[in-house]
Amino acid sequence: ELVVTQGFPCPHMQSIASSALRRVVLSASKRSNPLTSSTRRVVNRSIITRSAASMRAIAASVPLSGDAQVSYEALTSRLKKLSSLNDIEGIITWDELVMMPEGASEARGAQKAALAELVHLQATSAAMGEAISAAESAGAAEGCPWRRAVIRDARRDYNDAVRLPAELKAKEAELGAKGYAAWVKARKNDDWASFAPVLEELVALRKEMAAACADPGVSAYDYLLDKFERGMTEERLTEIFGELRTKLVPVIAKILAAKPLAHPPALESGTFAEDAQEAFCKHVSAAMGFDFGTGRLDRSVHPFTGGAGPHDVRITTRYDDSVFMDAVMGTVHEVGHALYEQGLNKEQDGLPVQRALSMGIHESQSLFWERYIGQSQEFWKAMLPEFHANFPETKDVSADDLYRFINKAKAGFIRVDADELTYSMHVVLRFELERALFGGKISVAELPDLWREKMRELLGVVPETDTLGVLQDVHWSDGSFGYFPSYTLGAMYACQFHAKAREEIDGFDELVAAGKFTPIRDWLRDKIHNVGSLYPSADELCEAVTGAPLDPSIYVEHLNKKYSALYGVAE
Amino acid sequence: ELVVTQGFPCPHMQSIASSALRRVVLSASKRSNPLTSSTRRVVNRSIITRSAASMRAIAASVPLSGDAQVSYEALTSRLKKLSSLNDIEGIITWDELVMMPEGASEARGAQKAALAELVHLQATSAAMGEAISAAESAGAAEGCPWRRAVIRDARRDYNDAVRLPAELKAKEAELGAKGYAAWVKARKNDDWASFAPVLEELVALRKEMAAACADPGVSAYDYLLDKFERGMTEERLTEIFGELRTKLVPVIAKILAAKPLAHPPALESGTFAEDAQEAFCKHVSAAMGFDFGTGRLDRSVHPFTGGAGPHDVRITTRYDDSVFMDAVMGTVHEVGHALYEQGLNKEQDGLPVQRALSMGIHESQSLFWERYIGQSQEFWKAMLPEFHANFPETKDVSADDLYRFINKAKAGFIRVDADELTYSMHVVLRFELERALFGGKISVAELPDLWREKMRELLGVVPETDTLGVLQDVHWSDGSFGYFPSYTLGAMYACQFHAKAREEIDGFDELVAAGKFTPIRDWLRDKIHNVGSLYPSADELCEAVTGAPLDPSIYVEHLNKKYSALYGVAE
Repeated sequence: ELVVTQGFPCPHMQSIASSALRRVVLSASKRSNPLTSSTRRVVNRSIITRSAASMRAIAASVPLSGDAQVSYEALTSRLKKLSSLNDIEGIITWDELVMMPEGASEARGAQKAALAELVHLQATSAAMGEAISAAESAGAAEGCPWRRAVIRDARRDYNDAVRLPAELKAKEAELGAKGYAAWVKARKNDDWASFAPVLEELVALRKEMAAACADPGVSAYDYLLDKFERGMTEERLTEIFGELRTKLVPVIAKILAAKPLAHPPALESGTFAEDAQEAFCKHVSAAMGFDFGTGRLDRSVHPFTGGAGPHDVRITTRYDDSVFMDAVMGTVHEVGHALYEQGLNKEQDGLPVQRALSMGIHESQSLFWERYIGQSQEFWKAMLPEFHANFPETKDVSADDLYRFINKAKAGFIRVDADELTYSMHVVLRFELERALFGGKISVAELPDLWREKMRELLGVVPETDTLGVLQDVHWSDGSFGYFPSYTLGAMYACQFHAKAREEIDGFDELVAAGKFTPIRDWLRDKIHNVGSLYPSADELCEAVTGAPLDPSIYVEHLNKKYSALYGVAE
Repeated sequence: ELVVTQGFPCPHMQSIASSALRRVVLSASKRSNPLTSSTRRVVNRSIITRSAASMRAIAASVPLSGDAQVSYEALTSRLKKLSSLNDIEGIITWDELVMMPEGASEARGAQKAALAELVHLQATSAAMGEAISAAESAGAAEGCPWRRAVIRDARRDYNDAVRLPAELKAKEAELGAKGYAAWVKARKNDDWASFAPVLEELVALRKEMAAACADPGVSAYDYLLDKFERGMTEERLTEIFGELRTKLVPVIAKILAAKPLAHPPALESGTFAEDAQEAFCKHVSAAMGFDFGTGRLDRSVHPFTGGAGPHDVRITTRYDDSVFMDAVMGTVHEVGHALYEQGLNKEQDGLPVQRALSMGIHESQSLFWERYIGQSQEFWKAMLPEFHANFPETKDVSADDLYRFINKAKAGFIRVDADELTYSMHVVLRFELERALFGGKISVAELPDLWREKMRELLGVVPETDTLGVLQDVHWSDGSFGYFPSYTLGAMYACQFHAKAREEIDGFDELVAAGKFTPIRDWLRDKIHNVGSLYPSADELCEAVTGAPLDPSIYVEHLNKKYSALYGVAE
């Protein structure tokens, strides 16, 4: 998970977005869909067809001078200070979750509120607005896509921030807290009826915010989606998730009907000392190329990646001596997030273009490592000696045993417990409900029944309680509608990046099997990390990296091939 | 040591004042000496003669209403936000010293600069000035000494902040960094000549700052003293340190001429496992009443107390397996600071009156525990079983052995290594030099020779190099003139408080010998911690607690009695 340190008011949000992404999460303005707006695509082609390295060459080749230079420097100076304040928020949030004594929580709340108020004042100041306008009219964006992206995002962030009326901002904070409290209680008591009215208020609030903040003609749901996934729209998502649903449901049904895999008792019911787990996780982190000179690995109740990247990236994990794989895969996942943060372009320190592009792209980096490296046979070949050394009781366990153990597939009710094969269906379900809700096709009251119906359609199981159904996720409790799609978009981007990386990196699988991850990390760094928010949408980044926008069929094909082989059924 | 997170620009200052005191350290306006201004004393009598508890009663008995209430609440709301921002600075400074990965130091510098800029803008805003004026003219100070102190200090802080011209503030930062770098180099190379010109610039800068910021008629040195020790003046210090020098020099000469104490080899050359030291230090901290629910104890290169008291007080210590007593006494010292912070008045959260009164009073709290508890025979009686349990090789060492070991006296060149008996002479030396320098009696060029001369007079030893003499301390390198006196004022306040506590607490020595420190902590909390900055000077607090302003003869008598007995010479 990633830590968001500002944005939506609910505490749970602290565990679902990175501080680098916070600004993405906060952003409110809506641009036209790059995949349906041909004019925009043409403009952006000039960016897309150039690699990050050649773009840096361009930046160097057309230096600024005169008014343009003066105005650009005045703007970036302001932006860097704002970024430093956001970094501070990242550090004190990490501290709160990892170090802070319990008795300080109220004081910490006051500290964060005071800082957020100042950040907001700076971000919405007339001086900031004037600095952006000056850079725009002096032509500071000309001749360099990096500068162009800096000014583009400064404008975007500024417009987002100034458009939100203070009373809606206050209402958001109030309702977020109220919704979270109501949800905790409702989930505990399996009492949907007590939560439904607050959820209705939250939907109404988000609609009101969209009406106030979105660009003309942008729907409320598109406005919300864009906060998490820049450039994404309901139309494009319907296309992507429609194809995913159509093609993946039969694959899932086929696999779930097959005979379950058997596993060695040493894996299923062994005990794994926490210290040995920690040693193993540190070994894996270092092998993946996590830089401890600009990062930390600590323990916390909920694993997350936070801090103030790229110079100070902090990941956490937790250890349970009965389920070693959670800590290992959790660490691999967080290191994936952390490598993205550590790999951000240091030449653009503190500027908007340096930031991670979207929640989906951030998740693509964690899932690239978790799903396509950590869950591969090759990875466990590489790690087997270290694994045996740390857990001597597993000496008879093979890399293939580990591979099969870590890739079990099973239909379940709970999204966060879902495996690779079935996870995306939980997301498709939520997307379809959110889209219908914001499109006025269904009411809040219909959600529990529709939830059960869709679970039956997608995974063939029906939860007996709302706690296991519509009440399971924290996200809606503070109105984070539009967030869920990022998880599965991330998985699909990761899959498409992985396929491309295997094409472009010589001996990819052999490198993984040898535990030599540096060329892989460096490929991601060059293609994705270093590029930050240069592209205005993940689809455009995906096209720059892989030659095509997101294609769900690549993902379905991967799952079909992998799980058919694992479960011994025909593709 | 205490951590200052803002104020003088040099990094070393981070290790010499608490974040709570930062505001004291920063304060610049000079009030008349309470001991020489009879009008003021009369006014303040009404405070002094009442205990904290009865003052709270007064506060409750004269509630505000109407304009006064509105204006007081508007002011305190602003002050609390500012305090929260300062708390954040405390946390990120702690993080920097204890947790931050090395590669983040440049980014952290930018973060702290961005925050400091915002804090300064808030502290000097027209809105803050208007809020203070409104509270003043609405009479919000009437009827309650706490409110009166809040408004008094808000005015003081505001005036201090707005009087300092931006160019002097910038010059202070620049020269502080330059001076620190020059000092590090000069001390390393024993090269006074390379440091002297920068020191001259620093003296000139402080004089210029005093001219710009001090109240009319206040000398530059008084202005500087007041930054660390509220209400203290050169005149009063000359009186205090003059008496101390006259009375203590012969006592020191007598003790140093006596036969040195002998110690068990187990103490002098034993090895003490770091884990056992840590366990022992945690035992001692808990016994002293350090609250781990609102604090932490970690390791760091230089021990300090920091964080964001009173709800989040963080102490650190370091362990060296050859010198266990440094860690133990270091921990006792830091816990003393920490108990002060944890004991600040929570009813006044975030308001200036809550803050620690002065550097000297803060040091009095650390030294109360270090010198009068930790260095006592009774303490080691109480701790002996735990000590033996953690260090089995010391099984033949008695409480008396430990008492003698910890109270060795020896003349040395280096202040920070000095023992209880001789420490104050290092401070008197520096005070006399600073006073003469700012009074125009001596030049910077004369300092090295005068240093040697005074060392001979006071302690009978003469350093052979400037590195062991005039170049040893970091303080002057960023212009922290006026800081040194606080150390010895703290030791003397502690002594006077201790004498009073032994009078007022039944069976004081027996409590210490039983390891029952709660009544002692609570006495300090009630008399000193809880009172915060209610009194406008340490002398007035001292009078409220002990019935008399600071009296150096109490301190000299203590040292004479204790060391004469230890060394077997006549008092």
